[in-house]
Amino acid sequence: MPDPFEGPEKLLEIWFAQSPSDVDKSLRDVPRSVWEEMLDIVRCKVLNVIVGEETDAYLLSESSLFVAPHKLVLKTCGTTLNLYGLPRILEIAEKHAGFKSVYRCFYSRKSFMFPDLQQGPHKDWKQEVEYLDKIFTNGAAYTIGKMNGDHWLLYLTDPDIQTNDVPHSPLERKVTLNHLDYTIEILMSGLSTPARQHFFFPESANPDDPKISTSHAIDLGQRIGISEIFPAHLTTIDAYSFIPCGYSANALIKWGEESLNSDCDSTHRHSGEGYYTIHVTPEEGWSYASFECNVPLSVGQSAETKIPNLTSLIKRVVHIFQPSRLTLTLFISSDENESSQCGETAIETAQRAFKLALADIPESSFGYPLDGSSRSYKRTDKINYEVGGYDLAFASFELK
Amino acid sequence: MPDPFEGPEKLLEIWFAQSPSDVDKSLRDVPRSVWEEMLDIVRCKVLNVIVGEETDAYLLSESSLFVAPHKLVLKTCGTTLNLYGLPRILEIAEKHAGFKSVYRCFYSRKSFMFPDLQQGPHKDWKQEVEYLDKIFTNGAAYTIGKMNGDHWLLYLTDPDIQTNDVPHSPLERKVTLNHLDYTIEILMSGLSTPARQHFFFPESANPDDPKISTSHAIDLGQRIGISEIFPAHLTTIDAYSFIPCGYSANALIKWGEESLNSDCDSTHRHSGEGYYTIHVTPEEGWSYASFECNVPLSVGQSAETKIPNLTSLIKRVVHIFQPSRLTLTLFISSDENESSQCGETAIETAQRAFKLALADIPESSFGYPLDGSSRSYKRTDKINYEVGGYDLAFASFELK
Repeated sequence: MPDPFEGPEKLLEIWFAQSPSDVDKSLRDVPRSVWEEMLDIVRCKVLNVIVGEETDAYLLSESSLFVAPHKLVLKTCGTTLNLYGLPRILEIAEKHAGFKSVYRCFYSRKSFMFPDLQQGPHKDWKQEVEYLDKIFTNGAAYTIGKMNGDHWLLYLTDPDIQTNDVPHSPLERKVTLNHLDYTIEILMSGLSTPARQHFFFPESANPDDPKISTSHAIDLGQRIGISEIFPAHLTTIDAYSFIPCGYSANALIKWGEESLNSDCDSTHRHSGEGYYTIHVTPEEGWSYASFECNVPLSVGQSAETKIPNLTSLIKRVVHIFQPSRLTLTLFISSDENESSQCGETAIETAQRAFKLALADIPESSFGYPLDGSSRSYKRTDKINYEVGGYDLAFASFELK
Repeated sequence: MPDPFEGPEKLLEIWFAQSPSDVDKSLRDVPRSVWEEMLDIVRCKVLNVIVGEETDAYLLSESSLFVAPHKLVLKTCGTTLNLYGLPRILEIAEKHAGFKSVYRCFYSRKSFMFPDLQQGPHKDWKQEVEYLDKIFTNGAAYTIGKMNGDHWLLYLTDPDIQTNDVPHSPLERKVTLNHLDYTIEILMSGLSTPARQHFFFPESANPDDPKISTSHAIDLGQRIGISEIFPAHLTTIDAYSFIPCGYSANALIKWGEESLNSDCDSTHRHSGEGYYTIHVTPEEGWSYASFECNVPLSVGQSAETKIPNLTSLIKRVVHIFQPSRLTLTLFISSDENESSQCGETAIETAQRAFKLALADIPESSFGYPLDGSSRSYKRTDKINYEVGGYDLAFASFELK
């Protein structure tokens, strides 16, 4: 019997500056072949790339790579050697873009289902931290959630002030504020049988058809609602179905002022480009789906033609994958970490949105039985961290 | 050279019922000699005991034991084998008080300075968790704070419903609410030289004087302000100075309605008895002081003759020990875990109190130089957990 597949991804995010306007050269000018050499070390291949206005989104044989002028996100699943790519990324950034130091580095992952199958430093969180501590002198490592249950591991470095030592003018300051950093991850295990079955090729499929992986993925995305997570007119999707099973998608979301809901926080009130990325391992026994998105979401009302709010987004994603267990993490950069005298912090508001979203997920569309039943989740962990200028909301839920 | 001393304590708290009114027999009826046999396994001795209305407070050669009718707190430092006491405690509770199962168990400690000197399961958090998981089937383990820095480890079990399966009448419900569980811990490292020096015996002391440990401790407590942490008329202190250095104190605090500040939360508005306990390791290189207290504190104004509020308490304690680094943990039982629409959670309010208290600690009394200088701390971690009916605020600070 083949080894089971480790769906939960290793997620490495390296910032060489705080915003694209802080850099003269761009990581996007690095040739694809150079990234491919780095990916050889990590042990994955480029399947396709879509080029946005601000970001290049590479779909990989094991997850995704996003490249912006000033930062890079490398997300890889299975037994890939994600962290072995880091030294090469730093070399590439210096050689091709003149970036001599890292502004911030983040590395995170969910607890593995099959840690013994991992290789290199990834066998153990302690070894991963030691590996990173050899590269960075200003890193902090956290274990978030139940050590003897589902948990999430995070390593992050303090901002390197030298990298951004030019005093900001008021105008630059505004640019920085507009580059609010916001990332939501929904990591789902134990997908329902009806949800899993969509991600297997039918017996009748012709594996020699060169376009079958793309056409199956596009059809699937429309059938089960992936293409409707964000409004279709704002979304460019690059999706791929693996033979015999499995699915990956990168999407670039381009939004303008008019796409945002009217009560959206003023710090979100700008046009921009973000991504979401989905990866699905549908096999029973180790089924897993991940959704990650860096589009800032409001917590107010959301209209159907606009960017969904946080609650709607979670409902849409969980409705598609029907997990028995999930963890949510929301990472928000914050200038002002303290709540007001009678105020609620942004992450506390987000925690309420998580709970609201998962109280009642209808099971009545996208090809599932129309029996009017619904799924309801109970929260098993609720944790708020404030670390190095970021607020983090973490929550675990399981099916009631 | 002798081994350094591990000040940070292992803290085991076992509840056999939710409140004293839920039990027919009392752990306080267990003879002292029976507890002493258990403490032999843990490797510590009883120095003294004070008997309160609700609690017996044993001062130990390595920290403290508190026994209430329905629960027990065993706090031991150094290389004691705290968890080896647990099976014997369960036997004693069944044999002497008829308690057949545990309602809740909590085990926690700060990261050790010298983990290699520990014995038995205490060499490693993973081993401690495995040891506890063999006794309990419903435990969750957490690592709170920087894994590669100061952190705090917590194991707790879900409430055992069987133990408390009698439906509560409205009257009983009220009793339960009155037994709000509230524990603050202030764990301090790197004490200043002036703060440390008080905890050494002078050269001139006569070690053969049988009362010297008590008289030195009482004098010391009055000189540096320990006796004024809570109003003296509400406090019974049992203190002990070790030869040649080190200090322990148990205190029972008895309060009535009139001792509380007028704006105190209504759930705190009852008379009761609580404890605080202080343990000091003054040697340079591994200096450490801990303060733990289960008296519910308000966050409002505090009058000098009354129970201090949270901010005043922290200021008083930190002023005495002058640590270079400290962690604060506040554990509050909560029926209502969710904040209101525009409300702040109790732990978020506590986090603000922590920060306020540590922004400015004057260094102008209790025998320190009257130079008008003050100490100010910066927060390095702020973490809020909601676990099994408790809200936990954790924060780390270091001297600016």
